[in-house]
Amino acid sequence: MTLDLHITLTYDMDVPTDILLQVEAAAIPEQVIVSATLDAPACDHFVRVAAHDGIGERIWLRPSGRLSVDYRARVTVQRLLADIAALPQIALHLLPGETVQYLFDSHYCPATKFHSFVETEFGDLQGGARIAAMRDWIAEHFVYQPGSSDGSTTALDSFVMRHGVCRDYAHVMIVLARASSIPARFVSVYAPDVTPPDFHAVAEVFLADPAGDGGAWHLVDPTGMATAGEMVKIGVGRDALDVAFLTAFGTVTLVEQNVSVTRV
Amino acid sequence: MTLDLHITLTYDMDVPTDILLQVEAAAIPEQVIVSATLDAPACDHFVRVAAHDGIGERIWLRPSGRLSVDYRARVTVQRLLADIAALPQIALHLLPGETVQYLFDSHYCPATKFHSFVETEFGDLQGGARIAAMRDWIAEHFVYQPGSSDGSTTALDSFVMRHGVCRDYAHVMIVLARASSIPARFVSVYAPDVTPPDFHAVAEVFLADPAGDGGAWHLVDPTGMATAGEMVKIGVGRDALDVAFLTAFGTVTLVEQNVSVTRV
Amino acid sequence: MTLDLHITLTYDMDVPTDILLQVEAAAIPEQVIVSATLDAPACDHFVRVAAHDGIGERIWLRPSGRLSVDYRARVTVQRLLADIAALPQIALHLLPGETVQYLFDSHYCPATKFHSFVETEFGDLQGGARIAAMRDWIAEHFVYQPGSSDGSTTALDSFVMRHGVCRDYAHVMIVLARASSIPARFVSVYAPDVTPPDFHAVAEVFLADPAGDGGAWHLVDPTGMATAGEMVKIGVGRDALDVAFLTAFGTVTLVEQNVSVTRV
Amino acid sequence: MTLDLHITLTYDMDVPTDILLQVEAAAIPEQVIVSATLDAPACDHFVRVAAHDGIGERIWLRPSGRLSVDYRARVTVQRLLADIAALPQIALHLLPGETVQYLFDSHYCPATKFHSFVETEFGDLQGGARIAAMRDWIAEHFVYQPGSSDGSTTALDSFVMRHGVCRDYAHVMIVLARASSIPARFVSVYAPDVTPPDFHAVAEVFLADPAGDGGAWHLVDPTGMATAGEMVKIGVGRDALDVAFLTAFGTVTLVEQNVSVTRV
Repeated sequence: MTLDLHITLTYDMDVPTDILLQVEAAAIPEQVIVSATLDAPACDHFVRVAAHDGIGERIWLRPSGRLSVDYRARVTVQRLLADIAALPQIALHLLPGETVQYLFDSHYCPATKFHSFVETEFGDLQGGARIAAMRDWIAEHFVYQPGSSDGSTTALDSFVMRHGVCRDYAHVMIVLARASSIPARFVSVYAPDVTPPDFHAVAEVFLADPAGDGGAWHLVDPTGMATAGEMVKIGVGRDALDVAFLTAFGTVTLVEQNVSVTRV
Repeated sequence: MTLDLHITLTYDMDVPTDILLQVEAAAIPEQVIVSATLDAPACDHFVRVAAHDGIGERIWLRPSGRLSVDYRARVTVQRLLADIAALPQIALHLLPGETVQYLFDSHYCPATKFHSFVETEFGDLQGGARIAAMRDWIAEHFVYQPGSSDGSTTALDSFVMRHGVCRDYAHVMIVLARASSIPARFVSVYAPDVTPPDFHAVAEVFLADPAGDGGAWHLVDPTGMATAGEMVKIGVGRDALDVAFLTAFGTVTLVEQNVSVTRV
Repeated sequence: MTLDLHITLTYDMDVPTDILLQVEAAAIPEQVIVSATLDAPACDHFVRVAAHDGIGERIWLRPSGRLSVDYRARVTVQRLLADIAALPQIALHLLPGETVQYLFDSHYCPATKFHSFVETEFGDLQGGARIAAMRDWIAEHFVYQPGSSDGSTTALDSFVMRHGVCRDYAHVMIVLARASSIPARFVSVYAPDVTPPDFHAVAEVFLADPAGDGGAWHLVDPTGMATAGEMVKIGVGRDALDVAFLTAFGTVTLVEQNVSVTRV
Repeated sequence: MTLDLHITLTYDMDVPTDILLQVEAAAIPEQVIVSATLDAPACDHFVRVAAHDGIGERIWLRPSGRLSVDYRARVTVQRLLADIAALPQIALHLLPGETVQYLFDSHYCPATKFHSFVETEFGDLQGGARIAAMRDWIAEHFVYQPGSSDGSTTALDSFVMRHGVCRDYAHVMIVLARASSIPARFVSVYAPDVTPPDFHAVAEVFLADPAGDGGAWHLVDPTGMATAGEMVKIGVGRDALDVAFLTAFGTVTLVEQNVSVTRV
């Protein structure tokens, strides 16, 4: 599957301000960047650094006045797809060291509190079958409602409120997985069919690799808007705190933002 | 039903410390204080003030060294009992002014967040029938587990964790009721059969008065440990923040505490 | 001092919705309602109930479609004014029962956490002198910044962030007072010179009554925008949770809101 | 400086339980592990994985009944020491990618809220001079008080309460640094003179490398109990959530724990 991305961002600021931008498709084996251009204003500096877990890059910019970013890319997704429900869980002691952080509580994802709930609700299922049941449980019990959450909303809030946007769905998926001792991380992606068109966020869980005898990360979208074969990864992290598309070290004002993702 | 209460509290403090004590059975029509004695140490002062909503009293003490309180009382409970499930809800605009505060969010009881959940889970029931269903839902989904909560645990936490002690059960009952526009308050009580023996806490909801055409408060214990006919009220409030049996304005150390409640 | 109030509120709603409105000047001895008119739409019901602590009233309405409220009043403020800094503190055991709740933590005002800070910063002052120093400390260290807080902002957040609006200033004043064992409550008021014109919020502390030998409530505005002699009280409560000018039991959309307060 | 470490941990559990242990001195250039032995019970498995940022290791164990761990090591600390106050700040765009996560908010360290405070209090200082002033400010304003915090205490709470233990001091140091755009992380260490003897926690900030033209991490202990030349690093992370010495995936009971650190 090949997707065309076109993202434009415009921000205003009164004084030169350090900006950290993470909007590009990550250059990783599971997706081929066929072509890509990033137009950004001439500014004091333009420096790339590796992003979380080495997946994707962040760019330091220091614009003044107006920041207009235009990013276009064509990306072919070639990740191996699996039937999540059929994947075995990886025993804790066989987890790679870098996945261990994704078992723990994080700011938006206080997973420890969900132990009893997952045991009661999903206790007779293991590994991928449990993940699939959790994904379906969220899809059934939650209402996708733009504007219904904000930067203070945690998975605890969302679990109670039963509504939210993609970040909230992903956070709830993550706490349920971690409370089952399955590593789970937050992934920022581009996908077609996201309504309204925007940056999208999903969960990724670490289960058996169907192609081998180790483990692998598998995308799960409890909103049901995107499928693993049509998502372009931007970056990963423990929760939404780790994966902002723009972080300003000062005061900036959003003027306009557009995200377009189309199948070729 | 007549109950004998015997409560002893011992606290140590290094310097004279203001203490606010609320351990006595409230003198209200629904329960007759047959006899009562409160032994407390001679101290700088001993002043009674009305407690929350005028139900029960608090006592200001200023002991030094050791505070030993011995409270004994015989109380006959004569409240009218009702079949909660059969009671109609009171329309919002017919609620007495003093019950309105019990519709709102309070610190441990962020009821607003539970609107979707109660509509989905209990939307086809009204008034007392809904309350009874909520009480049964809590009883079915929660595990009573001494030590599993602390002073930072809110109804949001408890709802997710699915365990707690009486205060947590009461808080969850309160948020579910308030999210249904039914006034609900926190009640500190004495009751036999509480295990382990201790101060007990339940919820109270405002529904139709079976004896008249207005409304009345009705006790609900989602832990199932106590029944409305066998509870002696100490005080009420919006949540556990309002109803402490002892508040120290300084540093004190608990030495010993015993609560005994027996049927006569 | 006589003030003219003119408040208009317009809200839209899709279905008939229960609304609780608290916008009128409270009828209390310290302020004389010279004249007042409240125009509201014909609707299913219009019922007045006493508000928190019996100060002011709330009105139950159940409009459909559009709610337009027009409130005009002329109010003469005649409260006794005192030099706060000269007022003695009331000993805890001499506090009236109804003030005791204002010593405790409430949702937005976790006062207990501020004990060390107030002892260190204001430990050499007592009573009104301490209150005045706290008011000045807030005025000196905080920046009034519309839009810098929201419904999740507590006094803890504000104390750290050092900016906020009137509700945040009031919350910080309240925690500092309560952490000093001085009862403090939240007061919703009208006052001229509030910029931008809006509902205003201040703190009220319980100290000695300069006119007698008991205690009395005294208004304190740490924003410095209003003075005790020019504030018209609407209602009181433990913090902003208790004193909303409009509470909707359903979904409503703000169309327009204007607050005008002028000296006669 | 050479230190001898001797740590013993004993935990009981009813059923075989997965345990993640991180108690060993990290094998990193700045400290030489002269000798080390780790005695743990024979159990289902014993697997080492890299810890956060690749500093130190975690060990997966699955004991049953009782877990007794005895760790002894001799470690020579040879890190380059610097006068923190003299170190320049690294411009944001010159920060290595892996330090960027340490600029952001994390669960216990909501740094964003501290921007105004740091600008007001430390705005005339930059880089290491600012860090030194912050360290001294904490030391001056906080009281070290064992038992005064728990797992729910954030840097926001600690900043207000003005007391805590080493984790709280480190969290406050971290938020102040990050609010100044200086990367700061949480470090778990062994150090002599810690009273009472225990695992210790400090902050580490990223400033100029006195030995070169790039940047380097520098240890800062706002409790004043340890010095950079005498700390043995165990692990690092964004805050205390990332660096537990023992994580149990089930219920375990602490029986005994001893930490001994002595200068050779």
